Order: sequence, then structure tokens, then C-alpha cells
Amino acid sequence: MKTLINIDNGEISYYIGENALKSSEKKLDKFPKLFLLIDENIDKFCLPVFKEILPGLKISGVVKIESGEENKNINTCIEIWEKLTQLGVDRDSVLINFGGGVISDIGGFIAATYKRGIKFINIPTTLIGQIDAAIGGKTGVDFMGFKNQVGLFIDPEMVVIDPVFLNTLDKVYWQSGFAELLKYGLIMDIDLWKMIESKRCSDIDNWNQLIIKAAKDKIDIVRYDTREKGIRKILNFGHTIGHAIETFYLKQNRTITHGQAIAAGMICESWLSSQRIDLECHPQGQICDTIDLNFERLDFTEENIPEILQLMKQDKKIREGEFKFSLLRRLGKAIHDVKVEDNLVIKSLKFYINKSKCN
Amino acid sequence: MKTLINIDNGEISYYIGENALKSSEKKLDKFPKLFLLIDENIDKFCLPVFKEILPGLKISGVVKIESGEENKNINTCIEIWEKLTQLGVDRDSVLINFGGGVISDIGGFIAATYKRGIKFINIPTTLIGQIDAAIGGKTGVDFMGFKNQVGLFIDPEMVVIDPVFLNTLDKVYWQSGFAELLKYGLIMDIDLWKMIESKRCSDIDNWNQLIIKAAKDKIDIVRYDTREKGIRKILNFGHTIGHAIETFYLKQNRTITHGQAIAAGMICESWLSSQRIDLECHPQGQICDTIDLNFERLDFTEENIPEILQLMKQDKKIREGEFKFSLLRRLGKAIHDVKVEDNLVIKSLKFYINKSKCN
Repeated sequence: MKTLINIDNGEISYYIGENALKSSEKKLDKFPKLFLLIDENIDKFCLPVFKEILPGLKISGVVKIESGEENKNINTCIEIWEKLTQLGVDRDSVLINFGGGVISDIGGFIAATYKRGIKFINIPTTLIGQIDAAIGGKTGVDFMGFKNQVGLFIDPEMVVIDPVFLNTLDKVYWQSGFAELLKYGLIMDIDLWKMIESKRCSDIDNWNQLIIKAAKDKIDIVRYDTREKGIRKILNFGHTIGHAIETFYLKQNRTITHGQAIAAGMICESWLSSQRIDLECHPQGQICDTIDLNFERLDFTEENIPEILQLMKQDKKIREGEFKFSLLRRLGKAIHDVKVEDNLVIKSLKFYINKSKCN
Repeated sequence: MKTLINIDNGEISYYIGENALKSSEKKLDKFPKLFLLIDENIDKFCLPVFKEILPGLKISGVVKIESGEENKNINTCIEIWEKLTQLGVDRDSVLINFGGGVISDIGGFIAATYKRGIKFINIPTTLIGQIDAAIGGKTGVDFMGFKNQVGLFIDPEMVVIDPVFLNTLDKVYWQSGFAELLKYGLIMDIDLWKMIESKRCSDIDNWNQLIIKAAKDKIDIVRYDTREKGIRKILNFGHTIGHAIETFYLKQNRTITHGQAIAAGMICESWLSSQRIDLECHPQGQICDTIDLNFERLDFTEENIPEILQLMKQDKKIREGEFKFSLLRRLGKAIHDVKVEDNLVIKSLKFYINKSKCN
């Protein structure tokens, strides 16, 4: 298997794997003016690596924001639009979103809306950024407690996915990204699932291969369904319940990673899959076991369920107040738009809280 | 000539002319949930007319903002995103931007960014909205003193242009829109020019025909060049200098209509056209005469020219600090991307200030 791949679908160039950044140098060099969007962690840990790999690349300006999901809001957007204006960024300029999911989410939105749109490039530095957030054109910021309530779909010119930056990652971010990796295995990639099933995130040593596989999975899906009208919805597996749990914690200012929330959501939604007799999802034990091996169960209680349910109903994906889930038909295969009644959703959360093992 | 036309290019439906709103009823009725964006003037003067024409149309909610260009800013956006969230507006909902250019500029931006995009419809109520702002997908808000600094290109589902709403207009808004009408004549429509040349706005009685002609001109141009890469740039005639003048006045909190600024810009840019020996724009006297008949010259002085020039250099359309104008080759025909040196731009502003008549 190759250690570096290049995919160019005519609209977006992807460089994925070892030495991806160095390989993208010629293409980066062709843009007239490059500006970086980073946060203080990237400044400290990743920017020196970037400069070491590309010492000759001219950067016309740097915009630095505070790190953290709590800063993915409209006030930070205002701050960035102001700085771009002050820096004299014009329509020929290109914004490089260099950082984790927060940076690519907010940076894509900024690039799409500054002077009615400038080009942008994503160079994700976290696992979750590399296999998910930086691919697929979903951008936005949280608003009034709702995730990505303000945002839009817009594609970058280039995505450069170089695992060299992952060396700077805290354990908690590895774990967070691992939840998304598990998701690709479950919904569409049985080979990937077999490579990670029953493994602890900390024991894995073939990250480069896993990242290439997962990033390709995501690229394949979003290419067929840019605007999430159909097949792309399977990427929401674990996210309908997971997002509501994440919002529930954030509203209380309690720390939770996206991966922890999605891991919880995947346990609930795997259980939902197992309850539908028209689906064939029986190997549910394996799923829970692998998730539980990597993520402790969260500590919300049955009393919190009504609020979590209410938050789910505010989800962008909910239409006419009806829950439609992406569920597993079997290992490695998901289907979308499965209607599920409130009552069953509540049961799935109880199943999670009671730390039940699936049979 | 028809008094009502319907254009459907597969992506956008236009209803233009007498009884346009009534004619669009069936199509409006098909959308599941309609929400209105209006301001207090629309509420008072246009909403009663709307309800009288379409008494059976179900409106699920109304968002009202304060009128005026000074409210076309990011704070108003935040207010609207909040109200839409509170009203439970979901991805199946449709926003109707019912009002002048401010409403369609801000409302299009809001619809494009709320929950990553909901559909929207423009029902312009001012002359400038009906022949310009509501057509062509340019949306956005002013930011840090720059016009439309934050925004994007996005098309509505439908545009309903019904002159019935113009009856509610103040004289000053008629005049403002008249500048854009003159522009279409000058840049692309010699027949239209002949219908309005040497006329006072207040003496015109065939508005319905003029609106249909101008709206069709705009639709034709933007269809060929959605993103303003080429031919669409001719619509910027009068706007490079005009926008800078408008910003100059707004920065000083002095009242100016868009039309007044554009009228000034068109005098300067007609003069620039006449200075280029490769262009054939000699009938410049007629142009100045018709503009002067409708718009008094503005009162900025030679001392203000450096600031106006500086504001022009911040224009979204400026690349690499070089002025490229849309100028007139002859009456009814414009060309774009004509390089002009700073010195000549300064002379054109002096020409304007000195109230010179062209020969």
C-alpha cells in the first residue's frame, strides 16, 4: 500500500500521507498571496514544523485566534474578518486553515464570506481534522448553543493531510479522532473495521494507513453527495444523538470532546440498529466492546434525557420534528433516513446509561 | 409590449410586471413553510398590500428589522439568526426577503448561512431593488465601513417584481433607483436610454415597461456571468468611484442615497471614457445633462479626493492596487477591465467638483 496518495478530482486536490506537505509545495507556491489562520497551539507546536518542511514558502500574513470549540462562534468570525481587512487581504489572496476542526470549520466560513469569497486551503493537524472536518466542505460556527447553526457548504482548493503534525497531539485528541475512525469502519469500510476492531487507540501503530483509508472513504462519500441530500447522511451515524449529548455538556460548560460524544452516540445508535428487525445488525457486542475499550461511558442520567431529546429536535437534520437516523444494516454498511420514534430513542439512551452490554 | 413577463431558467423563476405577485401565488403556495423578512416601513406600507393581493397565503412567521443602510451590518445578522432559531425555522423553511436592497442583501446572506443554507425568495419593493439588488445573487453586509465586505453569491428560488409596491415609495427612492436605470441604458440598452434620455424622473409615466426592460437586462447579464469574472463587470459602471463616494459620506454619517453616489460616479466615469482615444464615447454631453437634470452635484471638495481615492483602493474589485474600470465604448455599450491611472481618476473627480459640462 502506498504511503502517500494524491487525488485531484478537477476541483479539489488532496495530498494524503507521509510527506504530503512537502509534495504539495509546488502547488502552494503558485498561489499569489497566502495567509495563515492558526491558533496559539498551532503557533507553538505545528508552525515550526511547517516552516522546517517548507522554508521557502512565502506567507503574506498570519491571523491567530484562541483555540477551543468555545471560540468557534460569531465573535471570533468578526475578529477574523477585521484582521483580514486590516491586512489588506483581497480577492486574489488565499487563506490556509492550518489547525484542527475548529480552524477549518471557522476558516472555511470566513473565506466563503470575506469579500463575497476568497479561495482557501485546509491543512488539518488533528486526527479528527485529517479524516473528517477538513474534507467535505461543511463549515460554520456554533450559535445560541447549537452546533454549526451558522455556516455553509464550500469546498477548499486543496487539502493537505500530513501525519507529521499528529506527533504534536495530546492523547485526548487522538482518542477524539479515533471515534470518527471507528465510524468509517462501521458505516462503509469493513476492511478498516477489521484493522481496528477490539484495539485500543494507544496500541495502534499503522496510523498512516488508517488515515489514508478513512480520508479516502470521506472523499468518496462527499464526492457523490456534496450537499447531504442522500448517501452522505450515513456519515451522521452516531451524530444525531452524539451532537445532542455534546451540546448538553457544552451548555453546562462541562468538558467533552467531540469523539467522546460521538462514541456515546454510536453506542445508542448501534442499539437502535439492533432493534430494527429489518436490519441485520447483530454483531452489536463487538461494536460496544471496541467503543467501551476506548471511551468511558459519560455520566449523564435518566433525568437529563428529556433535555437531550429536546436538543436533538433542534438539530439541523430534523425535519417536521421527526427523527430520521442513519443506522447500521450490518458491519461496514449503513443506511440513511430511517424513521425512529421518540420512545425508542429514549430507550437507547437508557441502554447507554445502564452501561448495558449488547448481546 | 407585454405588461407582465415570466422567465424561468430552470434554477430561478422571475415574475416581472403588473400583477406579478398574484401570478406567483401558485408557486409560492407550494413551499411548505414561508417566513418573511421585513422592516418597519414594509410592515406599515407594503405588508397590507401583500395581504390584500394574497389573502390566502400562509405565513409561518415574520422577522422585522430596523430599516436603513446603517443597519446592514453583522449585528443585524446576529439578531436575525437568533429570531430564526427562536421561531424554529428549519431546512425546509423558505425565507421571503420582502423589502428594498438592504432586505435582499442581508436576507440572502442570512438564508445562505442559516443551518448551512435554506431557500429564499426576493420580493423587492423599491425601484433599485426591482431592477438591481434583488437580481443576480450578490448578498452581504457592510463591515468596518466597507460596503458588502462580508457576504457571498447565492441565488434565490424566485424573484417577484411587482410595481404595485412602488406606489408606496418616497421621491428620494425613486430618484435613487433612476440612477441604476440610466446605467442600464448607458452600458447595454440603447433603446432604454432613448426612452429616458433628457427626461426628469418625475415626468416618466411608463415605469412598468422601463422596469421590465431593466430587470431583463440584469437577468441577461448575470446569467452569462454569475460570479463576475467577465461581462458582468460592466454593471460596475459608475460604481467604482460611486461606491467610494458613498462610503466617504457614510463614514461621516452624512446622508446620501446609493443613486446619488452612483450618479456622481457615472459622471466621473463617463468623463474617463471620453478621455480614452481608443473608446468612441463622444456623446458625453447628453449623459451629463440627463444625470444633472435628475441629481444635484454632491458637495465634496478637492481636499477630500485623497480619502476617496484611498477608499477606492479598498474596493473588493481592486486587485494588486490597480484600478480597472468599466467604461463606455459608446452609448449603450460598455467594456470592462480598462486600466486607468490614479492621476486620471483624480482628474475625473475634479471635473465633477468643478461642475464642468462635457463638450
